[in-house]
Amino acid sequence: MTISPKLSPPGQQQDVENGLVLTPKFDASGLITVVTVEAETNTVLMVAHMNTEALAKTLETGRAWYWSRSRKALWLKGETSGQVQTVKEIRVDCDQDCLLLRVEIGGDGGCCHTGRPQCFYRRVDGVSDDGTVRLSWV
Amino acid sequence: MTISPKLSPPGQQQDVENGLVLTPKFDASGLITVVTVEAETNTVLMVAHMNTEALAKTLETGRAWYWSRSRKALWLKGETSGQVQTVKEIRVDCDQDCLLLRVEIGGDGGCCHTGRPQCFYRRVDGVSDDGTVRLSWV
Repeated sequence: MTISPKLSPPGQQQDVENGLVLTPKFDASGLITVVTVEAETNTVLMVAHMNTEALAKTLETGRAWYWSRSRKALWLKGETSGQVQTVKEIRVDCDQDCLLLRVEIGGDGGCCHTGRPQCFYRRVDGVSDDGTVRLSWV
Repeated sequence: MTISPKLSPPGQQQDVENGLVLTPKFDASGLITVVTVEAETNTVLMVAHMNTEALAKTLETGRAWYWSRSRKALWLKGETSGQVQTVKEIRVDCDQDCLLLRVEIGGDGGCCHTGRPQCFYRRVDGVSDDGTVRLSWV
């Protein structure tokens, strides 16, 4: 039987930064930022959010669950697209207010809702004469 | 003379997602999330925030400026530590509410305020019998 994870509240700064217990710091909306990268290449695929339930389900199932801020709903990534993210590793940052997921992607290997393999498909190209910041495709 | 960047407000979804003008979406606190990776290896170094001024200074100087939420101050990364981040590329995600900085690090090559080379120095190791989520060093 899988033991349900208990997400302890943050303690003292020393424990948060140097302790070996996950004490995630959720923001005022009850969310934590999650950066998701392709496990093998480290390519940054997307940035999303989790609430406690999404994080617990991710820990329990080994698949990435997020909280959709636009739809206000728990969201199993890939449930409809097949682009399920199998979690190879979860890391946490120094102040435990951000998670890093290293994943393998199922289905056609895509990630972004626009149909692209990753969300960061444009780069800053330069500043026009009128100050507009131009982008170009990656 | 360098032209000061003009950060246009977001337009229609189609322009935000498929346009070639940077129209960053700042949150209610006037901040945008920034993921910073090591340019050569894609290693995720840190996650931080920028306000309009930090983003404009980053675009103008080619060095990473952030907004420190704890200190409530503009912050040239590496100003005291020497760990200055030279920006090789700035990417933006589909809905333009997150930036990805690809940087080269100066000084001793470190990044995290705890002295470690990157902020994600712990991984989730497993769930204890009492439900506590254990971490281990990366």
